[in-house]
Amino acid sequence: MPSYTAPTKDMQFVLHDLLKVSQGDIPGYDELEPDFTNAVLEEAGKLTSEVVAPLNVSGDKEGCTLENGVVRTPTGFKEAFEQVKAGGWTGLDMPEQYGGQNMPYVLGSAVGEMFSGANMAFAMYQGLTHGAASAILVHGTDAQKDTYLPKMVACDWTGTMNLTEPHCGTDLGLMRTKAASQSDGSYKITGQKIFISSGEHDMADNIIHLVLAKIEGGPEGIKGVSLFIVPKFLVNEDGSLSARNGVAVGSIEEKMGIHANSTCVMNYDQATGFLLGEEHKGMRAMFTMMNEARIGVGMQGLSQAEAAYQNALIYAKDRLQGRAVTGDQNPDGPADPLIVHPDIRRSLMDQKSFVEGARAFILWGATLIDAAHRGGDEAADGLISLLTPVIKGFLTDQGYDMTVLAQQIYGGHGYIEEWGMSQYTRDARIAMIYEGANGVQALDLVGRKLAQDGGKHMMAFFDLVKNFIKENGGADADFDREFLEPLKAASKDLQAAGMYFMQNGMKTPNNALAGSYDFMHMFGHVCLGLMWARMGKAAREALKTGTSDAAFYETKLATGRYYMVRQLPATAMHLTRIESGADTVMALDADNF
Amino acid sequence: MPSYTAPTKDMQFVLHDLLKVSQGDIPGYDELEPDFTNAVLEEAGKLTSEVVAPLNVSGDKEGCTLENGVVRTPTGFKEAFEQVKAGGWTGLDMPEQYGGQNMPYVLGSAVGEMFSGANMAFAMYQGLTHGAASAILVHGTDAQKDTYLPKMVACDWTGTMNLTEPHCGTDLGLMRTKAASQSDGSYKITGQKIFISSGEHDMADNIIHLVLAKIEGGPEGIKGVSLFIVPKFLVNEDGSLSARNGVAVGSIEEKMGIHANSTCVMNYDQATGFLLGEEHKGMRAMFTMMNEARIGVGMQGLSQAEAAYQNALIYAKDRLQGRAVTGDQNPDGPADPLIVHPDIRRSLMDQKSFVEGARAFILWGATLIDAAHRGGDEAADGLISLLTPVIKGFLTDQGYDMTVLAQQIYGGHGYIEEWGMSQYTRDARIAMIYEGANGVQALDLVGRKLAQDGGKHMMAFFDLVKNFIKENGGADADFDREFLEPLKAASKDLQAAGMYFMQNGMKTPNNALAGSYDFMHMFGHVCLGLMWARMGKAAREALKTGTSDAAFYETKLATGRYYMVRQLPATAMHLTRIESGADTVMALDADNF
Repeated sequence: MPSYTAPTKDMQFVLHDLLKVSQGDIPGYDELEPDFTNAVLEEAGKLTSEVVAPLNVSGDKEGCTLENGVVRTPTGFKEAFEQVKAGGWTGLDMPEQYGGQNMPYVLGSAVGEMFSGANMAFAMYQGLTHGAASAILVHGTDAQKDTYLPKMVACDWTGTMNLTEPHCGTDLGLMRTKAASQSDGSYKITGQKIFISSGEHDMADNIIHLVLAKIEGGPEGIKGVSLFIVPKFLVNEDGSLSARNGVAVGSIEEKMGIHANSTCVMNYDQATGFLLGEEHKGMRAMFTMMNEARIGVGMQGLSQAEAAYQNALIYAKDRLQGRAVTGDQNPDGPADPLIVHPDIRRSLMDQKSFVEGARAFILWGATLIDAAHRGGDEAADGLISLLTPVIKGFLTDQGYDMTVLAQQIYGGHGYIEEWGMSQYTRDARIAMIYEGANGVQALDLVGRKLAQDGGKHMMAFFDLVKNFIKENGGADADFDREFLEPLKAASKDLQAAGMYFMQNGMKTPNNALAGSYDFMHMFGHVCLGLMWARMGKAAREALKTGTSDAAFYETKLATGRYYMVRQLPATAMHLTRIESGADTVMALDADNF
Repeated sequence: MPSYTAPTKDMQFVLHDLLKVSQGDIPGYDELEPDFTNAVLEEAGKLTSEVVAPLNVSGDKEGCTLENGVVRTPTGFKEAFEQVKAGGWTGLDMPEQYGGQNMPYVLGSAVGEMFSGANMAFAMYQGLTHGAASAILVHGTDAQKDTYLPKMVACDWTGTMNLTEPHCGTDLGLMRTKAASQSDGSYKITGQKIFISSGEHDMADNIIHLVLAKIEGGPEGIKGVSLFIVPKFLVNEDGSLSARNGVAVGSIEEKMGIHANSTCVMNYDQATGFLLGEEHKGMRAMFTMMNEARIGVGMQGLSQAEAAYQNALIYAKDRLQGRAVTGDQNPDGPADPLIVHPDIRRSLMDQKSFVEGARAFILWGATLIDAAHRGGDEAADGLISLLTPVIKGFLTDQGYDMTVLAQQIYGGHGYIEEWGMSQYTRDARIAMIYEGANGVQALDLVGRKLAQDGGKHMMAFFDLVKNFIKENGGADADFDREFLEPLKAASKDLQAAGMYFMQNGMKTPNNALAGSYDFMHMFGHVCLGLMWARMGKAAREALKTGTSDAAFYETKLATGRYYMVRQLPATAMHLTRIESGADTVMALDADNF
């Protein structure tokens, strides 16, 4: 059975060597001293490795069951959830006012990776609750916040997001769910929502559904969509639970993976709902949740890759098969371990350089969110808005590919459910789809984010890269050659792609859209390239100033060199594709496919 | 539920426009007139689409069950198998002497793709039988052939191949299964084999296991391995079934996919076995089966991609979501079909250009096998030996990726088992693993095949490309630019990679092995590039000489242009990685991962 060990040490490296969080001038960051974050991460690591991870395989096997309207989560889930709640982990970065611990998002993100890596399906129950609570926090009235947030921050009540309907996912303007205004200011919600993660289950006393619906008589299409709070049980003024609301699970889906998370068809039949935010501004309110969810989903890509990699590494060191071409490495054994073989190394290094780069990227992104939300930094807000589709799309695509690589190392055993490696790919697969399929992320990136605010966020990113190269170049020829030059080349490719879009996409938008997916991937590579260059610098600094753990920093440098040489050059291929434009992509009539 | 339509028309194009099989001078090819092959393919298409394909989803859902030593295949499998047998499909390319129809392998391959595309798990029962029969055909005594082949050609008895043991898959030298010589010339086989596809089931009267084992007292390691025929039921002289042999299924595996094929642990306890081929030459005999199986597995990559693509295309035309950026394409409907969106096109064109290129590649490979086996063409034999790991490794990796793309087009519905798209990825995943994991294919290619016979097969391939470009260049500037120049560039990359291996891999083998996987992929791209150039030529010829189906040939050209512009440039990236050598790959000590 696979195991999970929280990557605490690497997180500490990212937080302190790379991001130097405790020196940052973001409110709350001064608390993030290495000893403190280490204590938090160690504790979370223990809980996730010992309590949450052991339920991953069993949860997948057992799945959720629906009987008489009751969804049962797998054996042990409820008990583990109680432990997570008791430890205060569900409100780590939530306001103290509502029972949270008011920690920065960056620390919540690190802890979040652990939960997701240990058991993705399990972590979703609290993850979606966090997203729903955030939406209420930003858009709710004081009364709504007081009613729902304390319970949701504690995960005594969980949350969901209800967007998709059978005939519409991406194109929410086609939505049919209706909201009828009532004289008391509430609404009656009627319609069917599908693919509702954690829609119904047995781990919480109440479930707070955030539901998109159209108020009758409102504008057509997406402009007539509003967001509603629809609790499973209505809530009395004193906070106690009242009548069961008109919402019920219709069925649960049989899925490729995340079996332990209940994916529900939810039927709303004159359910009482309360407007969250403004009428017809539902998408705006939902996007508070969506943006957080998208970064959280990007993290799922990373977390599944990390968990799969850990196990692939154990297997590669353990499994004896064949001999190293350069001479026996395990002469007393019947064969050498897999890890001696160059092609196994290639695979492991692909995985290692991805997960460490992705972790830095995610946590850097989290500091941008903290800077925006806690520090009111508009530039950071713009930059993370630009990077969100990259985090979601690139990290889930690559994360999935890494789980496939990890599975491959097991040979036939990787295909057998008993060994648990198939689950990582099956679970990771959903991350490419939900919260906006990755093609939609690419569209969002190229069609919207790239030119947002006159393109200034994209320019800011390029400046960031340029300035890093400028500030750190010329001091050491090795560093220049190994890190800065590849980064410069990749960034140049990215700029050339942006230029191509400007010159060819204005008149013929298909020229931009046909290259959107490649652009998202090349952007992701440049982000990881930037992260590796920064980590390379941090590692060199640590080695220069003296460290008792030179092997760790040397390994970091070697891993970065690998990424620069083996992964980053993908940008050139993406650029070639982008510059070929839309002609070959759009050449066929639909009938001629 | 997904559907499957046999790609008869495209197969006819490959057989006749491209390969011009009926004009070939390979024995038996003169029978392959278009009318004849069309009749065969139409008939096979009907059977696979109407009888075999409808059992794909139900077979996945129901799976195989083991009770009291009896494995039950899913409902309907036995009846469908009887229909396949009654139609004579199982012996299409087998000798008439043993009840086959003696058709060339190329026709058997086209039909094989249909069976595999319709239902991969189902097709494996006959596919493995075919492989086992081939091994007996080549290495068996006349008596063995007479005893087993008529029944196996008819699939009254099915076959298996038994290589893997719990502690060894790739490294068969570690094998522990023993064969004890008996006074009557037979052997007693004792040991455990795992991952035995179709190892036990209820669709045949007898199962003929081909089992690798070590004769006691023989040489150590792989040089002491022999191959044995171990029937489930011993066979009397008159061909009737005798006593149950000492072989039994221990358990069946729970797998990620191919649920409808029983993957068995087989326990041999003093089972009677009969030497097939020579003592201690078991690997050679097994490789007759393995090479065929590897090409068959490459075809599974193609077939699952084809089936998934067909359904993704239907969905992309059917599902209304969003509007084309260039203006409404379906103004009377609530939204446009997915296929109007450039990023959906990109995905569909990736899939289409892959499956059509891969089909040409596989069928061309089959003509090489026919030329070698039927025509005694040693050059063809050498070339297909070189290409076998490319067919297996590249087509299964890419085929899998295409099933992921197809699934992605369905959005959330792609993740739900009800829609059947998850099954294509789950089934296709095994093809990257079994019959030698793809990393092993890359090792075989670079470590063995590349330099085989003084490297003359690789040189022959380069000559093939060079001559095609030379013979067809200069006549038309469009064709030169669109097809020949990209092919030339890609082939140059491949040559540069080969050169790098020669210059850097001799002294430091890791420099070659660290690039083996990239080499396999770039080789695959060049093969598909060559196929597309040849198909482009064929399409242009058809258009020039006049055809009633201009749209088909124009589509072929457009699809080829896409591959040349969007896929073939990947060779440059692979070359960059290869030329970076082994340093970054092998930098870390195992302990520092």
